[in-house]
Amino acid sequence: MNVELINIGTELLQGMILNRHQQWLGRELHHLGFRLRRQLSIPDTAEAIADATWEALHRCPLVITTGGLGPTSDDITRESIARRFDVPLQECASVRDHIRKFFADRGRPMPESTAIQAMIPERAHLFMNANGTAPGLALQATGLAGIAATNEAPWLIMLPGPPRELQPMFLEQIVPFLHDHLPPPPKPQWRVVRSCGIGESSVQEAILNRLETPLQRGLEIGFYSRPGEVDVHFTSTGPTAAEDVATAVEITRRAIRPYIYSTDNSPIEAVVLRELIRRKAHLATAESCTGGHIANRITNIPGASAAFEAGFVTYSNAAKTRFLGVLESTLREYGAVSEPTAREMAAGARERTHADFALAVTGIAGPGGGTPDKPVGTVYLAVAQPGGIATSHFLLPMDRESFKYAVAQRGFDLLRRSLEGETPDDTSK
Amino acid sequence: MNVELINIGTELLQGMILNRHQQWLGRELHHLGFRLRRQLSIPDTAEAIADATWEALHRCPLVITTGGLGPTSDDITRESIARRFDVPLQECASVRDHIRKFFADRGRPMPESTAIQAMIPERAHLFMNANGTAPGLALQATGLAGIAATNEAPWLIMLPGPPRELQPMFLEQIVPFLHDHLPPPPKPQWRVVRSCGIGESSVQEAILNRLETPLQRGLEIGFYSRPGEVDVHFTSTGPTAAEDVATAVEITRRAIRPYIYSTDNSPIEAVVLRELIRRKAHLATAESCTGGHIANRITNIPGASAAFEAGFVTYSNAAKTRFLGVLESTLREYGAVSEPTAREMAAGARERTHADFALAVTGIAGPGGGTPDKPVGTVYLAVAQPGGIATSHFLLPMDRESFKYAVAQRGFDLLRRSLEGETPDDTSK
Repeated sequence: MNVELINIGTELLQGMILNRHQQWLGRELHHLGFRLRRQLSIPDTAEAIADATWEALHRCPLVITTGGLGPTSDDITRESIARRFDVPLQECASVRDHIRKFFADRGRPMPESTAIQAMIPERAHLFMNANGTAPGLALQATGLAGIAATNEAPWLIMLPGPPRELQPMFLEQIVPFLHDHLPPPPKPQWRVVRSCGIGESSVQEAILNRLETPLQRGLEIGFYSRPGEVDVHFTSTGPTAAEDVATAVEITRRAIRPYIYSTDNSPIEAVVLRELIRRKAHLATAESCTGGHIANRITNIPGASAAFEAGFVTYSNAAKTRFLGVLESTLREYGAVSEPTAREMAAGARERTHADFALAVTGIAGPGGGTPDKPVGTVYLAVAQPGGIATSHFLLPMDRESFKYAVAQRGFDLLRRSLEGETPDDTSK
Repeated sequence: MNVELINIGTELLQGMILNRHQQWLGRELHHLGFRLRRQLSIPDTAEAIADATWEALHRCPLVITTGGLGPTSDDITRESIARRFDVPLQECASVRDHIRKFFADRGRPMPESTAIQAMIPERAHLFMNANGTAPGLALQATGLAGIAATNEAPWLIMLPGPPRELQPMFLEQIVPFLHDHLPPPPKPQWRVVRSCGIGESSVQEAILNRLETPLQRGLEIGFYSRPGEVDVHFTSTGPTAAEDVATAVEITRRAIRPYIYSTDNSPIEAVVLRELIRRKAHLATAESCTGGHIANRITNIPGASAAFEAGFVTYSNAAKTRFLGVLESTLREYGAVSEPTAREMAAGARERTHADFALAVTGIAGPGGGTPDKPVGTVYLAVAQPGGIATSHFLLPMDRESFKYAVAQRGFDLLRRSLEGETPDDTSK
């Protein structure tokens, strides 16, 4: 079943914010078996909102809007749609009570303007907002906008803009609602194989000609690469879908095994955390160029405290010496960005925290600080572990935030290989 | 002048990748004075590509597409458009030579499939790709698609998908091209006022009725809120634009002064970093529940090493005691999530790093770990500074990553107020 998504907000078109709804809803809908055919961003003018929803409802059985349900003057989704579709707005007592309670619970006065969010189009289904005040809405275009008054009339679902309101509302309320009110689409089978340290074309060459049979039976493959890593997405529907996807994953696993860190779509930090917890082992981190990015990624995962002991962000040389015990002579002789410094950072972090494993990184994020010998993008990694210290180094010349991300991937991968008892097979790429 | 953007790629609609072009191009176009009126993502089918560009060119004097110019089987933008607009493709020798040289320079064989990228629509302007093989293209729809053959016919600009190819091509080649081939749009005046600790509706109530005159003269206002903070965007064109935007910023500043951390669109971490560098002061961080998020945000800013000394991520009680000197008796008596612990973390980090300022946070990110006394979302903040220790505490019940972000905002804001010599006016909200 086809779906169209309309993201409402001038701030999207002026580039004030990044549109994360497209990716998040696109992925959720894809996994439910819906096909997102168009995604449109429009400014928050009454005409643009009314025109876009009107046109989409004449093309498509399910239209989802995001944004414009809040209390401020530019939040006009509800009103613009109600007017164009000629559906009266009515005050809903339960929404009004919800808004009052929301502010009372937080000990804050309820601004008068928020009352507008209790004005609900007649006949609309309500989805109470557990994390905010504006409810989500579902309206079937039965007899509206010149659409026939049948049970098959298309649905318009309006969701609030803030992701922390939209996402739980979608998962907890919209998914069951779609299940109850629309014919179920064929549920696709899908798996994602994630790899680090191998290029997109190499992955493609290694697997594509072995996948002829599943491809002929409708298997879809998507490659998505970021610096230093490649995800391979397999999707299929139909009678042999489960078998074809499983076969594709198995063929991929056999072809590029050392590079694969997950076949269940887990990010690499979740993979290493899971393995640490399984072993009842503890981790410490010692970061220079990544500046806390690695610790932040690990602690984004619920339950991280079971394995994450402590992290150091030692930006200055003094901090490397004082908190990790890096020798001043090492810094003098080899420099802060060097393998000996990375080794001493890892060993020091492990010893001082009594953790089982310690991951250390030191490098040059740029834009400044590069030299001919050690250009921007140079990075040294070390993992101190019960059996010794594993190291690797890379040149990853890219913008500062991409660099931190890419270095963290390589660091987690070195840790993953250490946990698996491998010695790194690549210390120079 | 209105612009429409068409992002081509099934991977966008399936949520495999995040569409960063919308934000990047939206912002660049906005600052050039162009108005992005629609952004559309479509799958890479010939019909969707041809239909979307056809429709857009009948609405709008400038249409930009991204993606689908590469060598693989799903890269069909060039061909789909040439066919629908009835423009023949011709092999271009200079592009062919560029592709050959691109591979030769990298010592890699040139895959046969890449030759397709030298097939260029007749009459198109070429933009050579300094960071890849596919050139960008500009085609004026003079006499095409039923559009009159005049100098004012709309332009279609096709850009390659990878951001590292698209962005330099846009800045270095497309901007001058637009300047030469289209009437210059009125350059807008714009400012963003960013605030922390006040709600969206309260900001609106405080400023809206004082902005009548600028609003009547065409000032546009946009509110954008994230947990605990609100951005207000002011934009205007026309003869009084500069004055109206300045007036609006000044009125907002007077109305909600204590909450404002920037009026030049800087994020709060950049504001505190700038102030630290200005004073030649150094900062240390001591994080429990934010797990490195604060250090990561600070070090995302180029030049952070001038002020950021070191950070501690002390997840365990043992780490709080060992590395920050938090007393075991404090942890026993008040708990790890308490004001006394936050104070000792900040004081310990400041003392041990010899930094001038230290920011400490301890709280319960959840989903586990809450108690009736200290529910999930409880957080205590402290800033140790030359004059003493400032503290605040909040209840921010939300998902784990939003919690970390919101806590960091409150932490940076407490630091900002400390740097400004204020005592926090709100320690309980």
